[in-house]
Amino acid sequence: MADIRTQSLKKPVDVAEYLFRRLHEAGVRSVHGVPGDYNLVALDYLPGCGLNWVGSVNELNAAYAADGYARVKKISALITTFGVGELSAINGVAGAFSEMIPVVHIVGCPSTLSQRNGMLLHHTLGNGDFNVFANMNTSISCNVAKLNHPSEIADQIDHALRECQLQSRPVYIMLPTDMVQAKVEGARLDNPIDLTEPSNEPEKEDYVVDVVLKYLRAAKRPIILADACAIRHRVLNEVHDLVEKTNLPVFVTPMGKSAVNETHPNYGGVYAGDGSHPDVKEAVSAADLIITIGALKSDFNTSGFTYRTSQLNTIDLHSDHCIVRYSVYPGVRMRGVLRKVINQVSASELAVHPSPTVSTQVNKTDDGSQTITQAWLWPRVGHFLKAKDIVVTETGTANFGIWDTKFPEGVTALSQVLWGSIGWSVGACQGAALAAKDLGDRRRTILFVGDGSFQLTAQELSTMIRQGLKPIIFVLCNEGFTIERFIHGMEATYNDIAQWDFKALVDVFGGSKTSRKFTVKTKDELNKLLTDDAFNAADCLQFVELYMPKEDAPRALVMTAEASAKTNAQRE
Amino acid sequence: MADIRTQSLKKPVDVAEYLFRRLHEAGVRSVHGVPGDYNLVALDYLPGCGLNWVGSVNELNAAYAADGYARVKKISALITTFGVGELSAINGVAGAFSEMIPVVHIVGCPSTLSQRNGMLLHHTLGNGDFNVFANMNTSISCNVAKLNHPSEIADQIDHALRECQLQSRPVYIMLPTDMVQAKVEGARLDNPIDLTEPSNEPEKEDYVVDVVLKYLRAAKRPIILADACAIRHRVLNEVHDLVEKTNLPVFVTPMGKSAVNETHPNYGGVYAGDGSHPDVKEAVSAADLIITIGALKSDFNTSGFTYRTSQLNTIDLHSDHCIVRYSVYPGVRMRGVLRKVINQVSASELAVHPSPTVSTQVNKTDDGSQTITQAWLWPRVGHFLKAKDIVVTETGTANFGIWDTKFPEGVTALSQVLWGSIGWSVGACQGAALAAKDLGDRRRTILFVGDGSFQLTAQELSTMIRQGLKPIIFVLCNEGFTIERFIHGMEATYNDIAQWDFKALVDVFGGSKTSRKFTVKTKDELNKLLTDDAFNAADCLQFVELYMPKEDAPRALVMTAEASAKTNAQRE
Ligand SMILES: Cc1ncc(C[n+]2csc(CCOP(=O)(O)OP(=O)(O)O)c2C)c(N)n1
Ligand SMILES: Cc1ncc(C[n+]2csc(CCOP(=O)(O)OP(=O)(O)O)c2C)c(N)n1
Ligand SMILES: [Mg+2]
Ligand SMILES: [Mg+2]
Repeated sequence: MADIRTQSLKKPVDVAEYLFRRLHEAGVRSVHGVPGDYNLVALDYLPGCGLNWVGSVNELNAAYAADGYARVKKISALITTFGVGELSAINGVAGAFSEMIPVVHIVGCPSTLSQRNGMLLHHTLGNGDFNVFANMNTSISCNVAKLNHPSEIADQIDHALRECQLQSRPVYIMLPTDMVQAKVEGARLDNPIDLTEPSNEPEKEDYVVDVVLKYLRAAKRPIILADACAIRHRVLNEVHDLVEKTNLPVFVTPMGKSAVNETHPNYGGVYAGDGSHPDVKEAVSAADLIITIGALKSDFNTSGFTYRTSQLNTIDLHSDHCIVRYSVYPGVRMRGVLRKVINQVSASELAVHPSPTVSTQVNKTDDGSQTITQAWLWPRVGHFLKAKDIVVTETGTANFGIWDTKFPEGVTALSQVLWGSIGWSVGACQGAALAAKDLGDRRRTILFVGDGSFQLTAQELSTMIRQGLKPIIFVLCNEGFTIERFIHGMEATYNDIAQWDFKALVDVFGGSKTSRKFTVKTKDELNKLLTDDAFNAADCLQFVELYMPKEDAPRALVMTAEASAKTNAQRE
Repeated sequence: MADIRTQSLKKPVDVAEYLFRRLHEAGVRSVHGVPGDYNLVALDYLPGCGLNWVGSVNELNAAYAADGYARVKKISALITTFGVGELSAINGVAGAFSEMIPVVHIVGCPSTLSQRNGMLLHHTLGNGDFNVFANMNTSISCNVAKLNHPSEIADQIDHALRECQLQSRPVYIMLPTDMVQAKVEGARLDNPIDLTEPSNEPEKEDYVVDVVLKYLRAAKRPIILADACAIRHRVLNEVHDLVEKTNLPVFVTPMGKSAVNETHPNYGGVYAGDGSHPDVKEAVSAADLIITIGALKSDFNTSGFTYRTSQLNTIDLHSDHCIVRYSVYPGVRMRGVLRKVINQVSASELAVHPSPTVSTQVNKTDDGSQTITQAWLWPRVGHFLKAKDIVVTETGTANFGIWDTKFPEGVTALSQVLWGSIGWSVGACQGAALAAKDLGDRRRTILFVGDGSFQLTAQELSTMIRQGLKPIIFVLCNEGFTIERFIHGMEATYNDIAQWDFKALVDVFGGSKTSRKFTVKTKDELNKLLTDDAFNAADCLQFVELYMPKEDAPRALVMTAEASAKTNAQRE
């Protein structure tokens, strides 16, 4: 006799299969995480659904990797075990929430029966509360789905994945052990899940487009500024087309870096208030209209809130609302507005001024010494990069230095300027490299990470080796937390770190035969390495210790650090 | 002119100084954590207050270390930075909550001004919500103190530290950057903070004592069972005196291991339901009265809920209530009850039967081969251990194997049987060894950790080396997650791990000159090492790779794993 709970199903499939096939459909190919007894049975379903299991070395690294994967592949999945696993990952997931990265976090948890009985199980707080971790996740997830009733599960999964994509933020899915093999309607899988963005209400959209065009046509020096959410909400084609059509100068913020083709003649550089290059600062100050696309004006993205622009000269286009001067248009999404503006505008009707020229200035920053200074390094990196490279930078000198690196076309830059959790970049590099591999792209993945940050998550190098990934990793060895020194405690011992034999880690983690290691202490050594064909080919994992002075920081960092110290100390 | 906010203070001191002097008074000597710009200024105050800063390699490791430190030193402190730091640590703090460990978690956070202004700062979710992380902590802390108003801060700190001690659970203290140097009343520091446990209401206590004595005197085979909370709530002297005075057999649970002197003739072994040794199981089953002290009947502490004892034969003494058969006495603390029972009882009025003899059975478990089996290892370790050793075991085969290790007198055992977060033991080992050092004790700290678990937190070895600690570390190399294999997926690749050159990590982390490394693959090799004088002296960090078979697990683990797999799969 058929099970009464499943006999009405046309094509019964197990919950785990349904979930994983939907993930595959949404674009996931590799799933990050760490096994635990509450998720083991679910893991058995991965290969059958075309998903590759990446056993990371710990859950935080796995979460960081999922973040990096999603930044390249537009979605990712993370599987952890109840309590211990998910809480180990929570900082990585919070980072994905803060930075708007679509990560599907699946937590294998005790059976619904155990939960109802309030059993005193391992990985619990011992108080019978099985919702406490889900509750923590409500504030860092755009959807929380507890898969407790088979009849609701397919809907819950589809809804969660849709929210994840649309809001570009993590979702949290609680998968109890007894639901893994419960049956849901597999016939639903015949129709792809709808992940398309809803259109704007046409009349409202037209209204906003008209207002935008009015100000744009009237402006004497209009410019475009692309920021984080242009990348996160996937309107880079629109940004590109807008620049082409209007011929206006276009700038990026630090978080918007790589949103724009930097070899384009209209590209004017990185704008971040007072931390910008003088030419850029001047050009932006002179503008009487700034169209920001996906702005996110956080402290580190603005050199400590140092924009000197007026809202009266600003049009802010956001993923779910627009603001023209002080008029707010809630619910009007930038994608539709941008597309119509592009269609209706023409360069000839606009006041177009040339952009500042962005050159990489390697010569200008060469102090004649062999010391690899921050001022010299980052422009130099610009010559090393190739089209379509994926560049990952860590909070610290790297995140500020990269402002001065001019990218070739098609580079994708990953950084965590808002959340700023150190160690993130090592996991993110693994995820990004894997995503490129899953996409079948032969793109290089290049990481710049501080020695301090690297220590937090160093063992994710092991996963890179295990997965056969071939990133180029630069560890900036400057004896500790230089960014912190510039905020407070230049000489303080708490800003020192243990001295490691960094590159020996490659061997410890099993990469001695398959990887290459380098130590670089002078400009000449670096120039030689960066122009070496074998090195550039990036056909194996390459690990570079790059020695730099302890008390040297990029100009933008010095300024931002000062501002931060002031904000921290400020009292009424 | 004096500041109006401080002129009423007799001896104004800075908040950071007040907090740290109170911590010192409570027993903290070393503080774990990772710097961040929101806590840097506070860190400057540590040395002046007699506190040693331990910069851990990441926050989760720091939290685990604080947990281990508190298990030895009875209290510990952890300092992290807002958002990124505290969330990285939260799994470790949740473990301390679950396992009842008193950890003071101090989070350096943005200034009260920045919070009120909802500034878009780094390490925030970008939504102006500065309470979201504190809210997450409410469910894993017994007190949350936001130090926002100078006039309340001294009270808040004293209250938090008191709760931390009394409830033996973490407290969460949010320290905004602008409060670090705010002034509070230093004259309060002239009187020590009251950390003593309140006494029971005498009449109520006497009532419970009478009931306990009545059943105890009537019983034909009474026994004592010491569990986790006897250790956590510090009634080990009472347990000891009760055994001496009554002459009754005493058993421990896995979480209660080391609560009792195992060389005492009354010690009967480890009781955990069906997973117990047959002799122990028989003795406990035959009892008609079990006095449990600090019971915590979780799945892994009871071989999967396999006690066959009746509540009608049970007296449960807890930190804040007692239960005699089915009568509950809320608010009656075990300490007072135990003390009075000890005073009033005498062995002559009780039915005393001898305890089972606990021998270490090394010979009995020797299969004649050179393979280091689980069955042979753990009894063998019993001969290696010395009085007062600190023994840390990790979730995995180690946590179950240690049941079969008979401890010399005064051993302190650390394990995380309820929370069970792998990687914990590496951090905890660092904290425990440091606590012993801070106590001026020359106790050895000995860690047994699985190869899988070690990978999660391996870099805490670096902190041990940096702090000059001298633990003996055994990494059980058995090609992955053996405990998981026994629950599900014996052959599954997700239970495999990357093969590391584990002991080379000692060199990577700067310990090549100061440490010693060993590889052990046979019984003879292990016997030789464990009887080597230099090794036993433990005068430097010693790292041992111990190779064991992949599909071998302690008897108790096999049984518990089966029970867990069943519970996970169970459906109505
Ligand atoms: C998880 C986490 N812990 C602490 C911090 C605080 N923090 C920010 S940057 C930094 C130091 C980074 O040092 P390093 O990676 O060496 O960078 P660099 O020397 O290049 O500045 C620290 C500790 C953080 N951002 N995230
Ligand atoms: C943080 C965390 N992640 C995942 C788990 C699930 N888990 C429990 S034990 C274990 C494997 C431990 O393997 P190992 O340390 O090698 O132990 P052994 O082989 O001795 O059993 C895992 C992955 C956990 N308990 N905690
Ligand atoms: Mg550094
Ligand atoms: Mg193992």
